[in-house]
Amino acid sequence: MNEQLLFNVVDLAGTFAFAISGATAARRCQLDLFGILAIAYITACGGGIARDVMIGAIPPAGLSDWRYLLTAVIAALFTIAAYPWVERLTYPVRLFDAMGLGLFAVYGAHKALLFGHNAEVAVLLGMVTAIGGGMARDVLLTRVSIVLQKEIYALAALAGAAMTVIGERLGWPPVWATWLPILFCFSLRFLSL
Amino acid sequence: MNEQLLFNVVDLAGTFAFAISGATAARRCQLDLFGILAIAYITACGGGIARDVMIGAIPPAGLSDWRYLLTAVIAALFTIAAYPWVERLTYPVRLFDAMGLGLFAVYGAHKALLFGHNAEVAVLLGMVTAIGGGMARDVLLTRVSIVLQKEIYALAALAGAAMTVIGERLGWPPVWATWLPILFCFSLRFLSL
Amino acid sequence: MNEQLLFNVVDLAGTFAFAISGATAARRCQLDLFGILAIAYITACGGGIARDVMIGAIPPAGLSDWRYLLTAVIAALFTIAAYPWVERLTYPVRLFDAMGLGLFAVYGAHKALLFGHNAEVAVLLGMVTAIGGGMARDVLLTRVSIVLQKEIYALAALAGAAMTVIGERLGWPPVWATWLPILFCFSLRFLSL
Repeated sequence: MNEQLLFNVVDLAGTFAFAISGATAARRCQLDLFGILAIAYITACGGGIARDVMIGAIPPAGLSDWRYLLTAVIAALFTIAAYPWVERLTYPVRLFDAMGLGLFAVYGAHKALLFGHNAEVAVLLGMVTAIGGGMARDVLLTRVSIVLQKEIYALAALAGAAMTVIGERLGWPPVWATWLPILFCFSLRFLSL
Repeated sequence: MNEQLLFNVVDLAGTFAFAISGATAARRCQLDLFGILAIAYITACGGGIARDVMIGAIPPAGLSDWRYLLTAVIAALFTIAAYPWVERLTYPVRLFDAMGLGLFAVYGAHKALLFGHNAEVAVLLGMVTAIGGGMARDVLLTRVSIVLQKEIYALAALAGAAMTVIGERLGWPPVWATWLPILFCFSLRFLSL
Repeated sequence: MNEQLLFNVVDLAGTFAFAISGATAARRCQLDLFGILAIAYITACGGGIARDVMIGAIPPAGLSDWRYLLTAVIAALFTIAAYPWVERLTYPVRLFDAMGLGLFAVYGAHKALLFGHNAEVAVLLGMVTAIGGGMARDVLLTRVSIVLQKEIYALAALAGAAMTVIGERLGWPPVWATWLPILFCFSLRFLSL
């Protein structure tokens, strides 16, 4: 129960951090309100939507669960309202971003297994969940994605997703199979900053 | 009966207008025949195909109903054949484009509700139906989408989709729940030109 | 039996060739290891994944069948290790690429029919299977896709997919309905080089 709550909190914190990274990038490209909101939402939810389409989870949770949209909108409005402040907050934003990477990779792999798919699908879609939104953001802003240029980002996601699958297959207790790979992915990413 | 026919006519008129806008953009980027046909088709049908994949309407109507492809091809060939004339026709093209925006937003929201999805999914996918094709066109032509830069475009689509969902939930007669939001979206878009 | 084996060999040869074309393009854009692997995999498997999502083949084979991923990874590592050599191998690479185009177009159309879809869906998705990966590669590398600029590429895929559908509808023996359109698409593409 408490675990589920903690999981939800971290999930939405990751959504918030990814949305801030999207909103910041959109603002730098001179987009106005709708553009910033749209890029924030796509950065935060695009990876999960792609995963849900590919595992047959229709409709995608990023569309049907209002908390994702609300979180992304709040993050975008916050970025617009407090832009100079957000620019100085790079450290906490990166902290959340690294947490989001870990959580999305683990949750994506977990959801693919839950829908009955094999280990390869789970590992690849865990990675897609974590990096897909950032890639969509960069495509829409017409630049070669940072995800494709900085290896450690995708490799940390890959490691987190792979560890999740191994843990669930070896029957680790759920708490360990969830939090160990999140911590592992987070550490890999955060230590490289 | 008559209503259904009118709906089909406006639907294909929207497809035609979106395809012209795609073909015109592709021709400006010096693409040749296939490139122009492909961009015209993707601009006209890309949003609807994305919607259908996300609501579980397999195969997407844009692929399986030959009238969409045929309309897009005719619009593209017409644009190529009469290019100087089309360039002077900005007013009617924009008129059709604004009609297409309204119709696609309303029809997209309606189809999502028809497949049993909730209000949020319907509003978001109504908007995706209306603006998705234009965003795909701009990504393929490697430019930041005009949809992300001109707010009123997406907001008009959002307003049309939201009004559709409200109307259907409040039990408005189908004719009103269909035509009022189309007119509303069309007016918002057209008055901003 | 033997036919199935031959089909698999050519399928993976096409995957290999498409992955080499993706890895070569990614390396030219100065991407490092993960970027090259990702672009190679997406070039080789992106078209098939899009097709599978649109025909309802969940999960997409490009994700769930490890042979595709392995082939793409080997092709990418080979490209990195032997880059100057690969650059001199343009002729065999193009040969494989043209084979891949034919095979993917035919296999894509065949799979769409197998899932019960109509002729238009099969022809369009045969083409998407063959050219979708290359278009995704070019979008990620932020350039207008060569597929949209060189007509013969997409038209050869279209011809191969259309011939497959005609052959299956007219009840040609499977060997003919498979190999004739592959040869036709391959010839169109290869003679234009």
